[in-house]
Amino acid sequence: MTPGTVVALSGGIGGARLALGLYRVLPPGVLTVVCNPGDDFDHLGLRICPDADTVLYTLAGLANPEAGWGRAGETWTFMKVLAGLGGETWFQLGDGDLALHVERTRRLTGGEPLSRIAADIARRLGVCARVVPACDAAVRTVVRTPGGRMAFQHYFVRDRCEPVVTGFEFEGAEEARPCRAVLEALADDSLRCVVVCPSNPFISIDPILAVPGMMAAIRAAGAPVIGVSPIIGGAAVKGPTAKMMRELGLEVSNRAIERHYQKWIDAWIIDSTDAADAARFSRPVRIAPTLMRTKADKDALARAVLEFADELRARTGPAADNGA
Amino acid sequence: MTPGTVVALSGGIGGARLALGLYRVLPPGVLTVVCNPGDDFDHLGLRICPDADTVLYTLAGLANPEAGWGRAGETWTFMKVLAGLGGETWFQLGDGDLALHVERTRRLTGGEPLSRIAADIARRLGVCARVVPACDAAVRTVVRTPGGRMAFQHYFVRDRCEPVVTGFEFEGAEEARPCRAVLEALADDSLRCVVVCPSNPFISIDPILAVPGMMAAIRAAGAPVIGVSPIIGGAAVKGPTAKMMRELGLEVSNRAIERHYQKWIDAWIIDSTDAADAARFSRPVRIAPTLMRTKADKDALARAVLEFADELRARTGPAADNGA
Repeated sequence: MTPGTVVALSGGIGGARLALGLYRVLPPGVLTVVCNPGDDFDHLGLRICPDADTVLYTLAGLANPEAGWGRAGETWTFMKVLAGLGGETWFQLGDGDLALHVERTRRLTGGEPLSRIAADIARRLGVCARVVPACDAAVRTVVRTPGGRMAFQHYFVRDRCEPVVTGFEFEGAEEARPCRAVLEALADDSLRCVVVCPSNPFISIDPILAVPGMMAAIRAAGAPVIGVSPIIGGAAVKGPTAKMMRELGLEVSNRAIERHYQKWIDAWIIDSTDAADAARFSRPVRIAPTLMRTKADKDALARAVLEFADELRARTGPAADNGA
Repeated sequence: MTPGTVVALSGGIGGARLALGLYRVLPPGVLTVVCNPGDDFDHLGLRICPDADTVLYTLAGLANPEAGWGRAGETWTFMKVLAGLGGETWFQLGDGDLALHVERTRRLTGGEPLSRIAADIARRLGVCARVVPACDAAVRTVVRTPGGRMAFQHYFVRDRCEPVVTGFEFEGAEEARPCRAVLEALADDSLRCVVVCPSNPFISIDPILAVPGMMAAIRAAGAPVIGVSPIIGGAAVKGPTAKMMRELGLEVSNRAIERHYQKWIDAWIIDSTDAADAARFSRPVRIAPTLMRTKADKDALARAVLEFADELRARTGPAADNGA
């Protein structure tokens, strides 16, 4: 395999799966995962970063494989006692997970930037990859519904994605800047590719791209940007992607996913069951199994992404314009 | 038994034991336990109230009987994970205990007074007594040592009471006021007695008395003030009382305990093994077993306190000057 660094943009569970595949097939230390800041929120006085934590736990081998969030072997004493005290229990916080939130909040309150805390914690958990938020500032996804604007976690967890979605806002994005680790990773001379994981475009990837300077830094990187479509068999594997697309008046299809990203992604990987969709893309497409159940699935998809990126680089030359 | 309300001033474990005896032998709803605010502290971004919580857990039947602090059946996942993240682990926080600290901190941050939160939580835990802090404001015990001033929990838990003590300060006491529930309990027409539990005078009872207006409210109550000496057999049962007395140049004796309180306590209960000390007291003394191992011990001591108080009231008349 070609040496070089890799940057992946990721939301929670689906993105974390591909991030794990990349982490496993790449040499240690070359992967940077840029995590969605939009679903971070303050709850019970704690800063909680659900997507970044899912990526962190997944790469650290600590994730609960059944739930897709939280830690394996978790205990739940805190939540049980909190319920008895009349506290808010709609957002489940395991006892071990809580340690991360308490420690992160303590360090944030002490003035440390989120990205430094995240990098330090990843190191302490033995993760040989950079798992960093897109930005240090608070960027919060707000869901527009016919009943009004909703904080993302109220929509997503408390109300189980039931409200109809009419649009999204990313509060605080205007004031945010990509954090230094992200800019450094994108400016690395040996950058092999930027991978857009098969995460929800609206609530996982768009908040990352909403950070001013992020898109420009990705374009300036000069490495192929490879998207892995979240659509499999004309549907979304998990989460509210398909429901959101319908509510936003979009076709639930690979074509609509490509359109959403407005040609900003250089090439696509779509699932084998949707091979017929390839003809509808305006950019190069590679067919591969994108459903990631086992570690072998994740590794195979990661290899397919990297090989495709290497082919694209070979076609255009490492520093060539890649289609902006 | 005479009907009437009872106010007890309490620190942690020793005070909580007598508070439990009083709670068990009194009718529901008549006991108010005024808790030491001086060992409260902010740790990991959370407000922790160790003495008040020990009283609360003890009366709620949730206390860990072996440790003397914390909850029975506790789990420790949070601390284990926190250690792995490089967090501060010198102060042990169980997973269930943490729920109380997180919920209290959340409500404090939202602007609720500590006493209202404490009362509400006690109610939710099914405690039919008022368990309230001496004051809503932060009063923090600072330990003077030859090496400088130390925050109380650093002295008490982190450094295990090893530094030599030269004195104490109660930071913030000047600005504090007794909380309303305390003043109401002391102003109750049916007040039967004020009990000073066998807690450490320097670090458990003095911080309560350091709150301006507290002493005046107790004196104005016109009910007997009964102290239970923490000395048994010329030593202190538990904790650093005897060590502190030696370091402060005091005799470790009942006489020194009475002197410390400067005749402010109307009458004393001392342990049967120290019966000979009775003659050295300037105030009435009752001899009773004060070591509280079993529930029966606690109940018996509580009854002895109440009976003694009733006798004193009968002697002086309910509204008589009781020796100020």
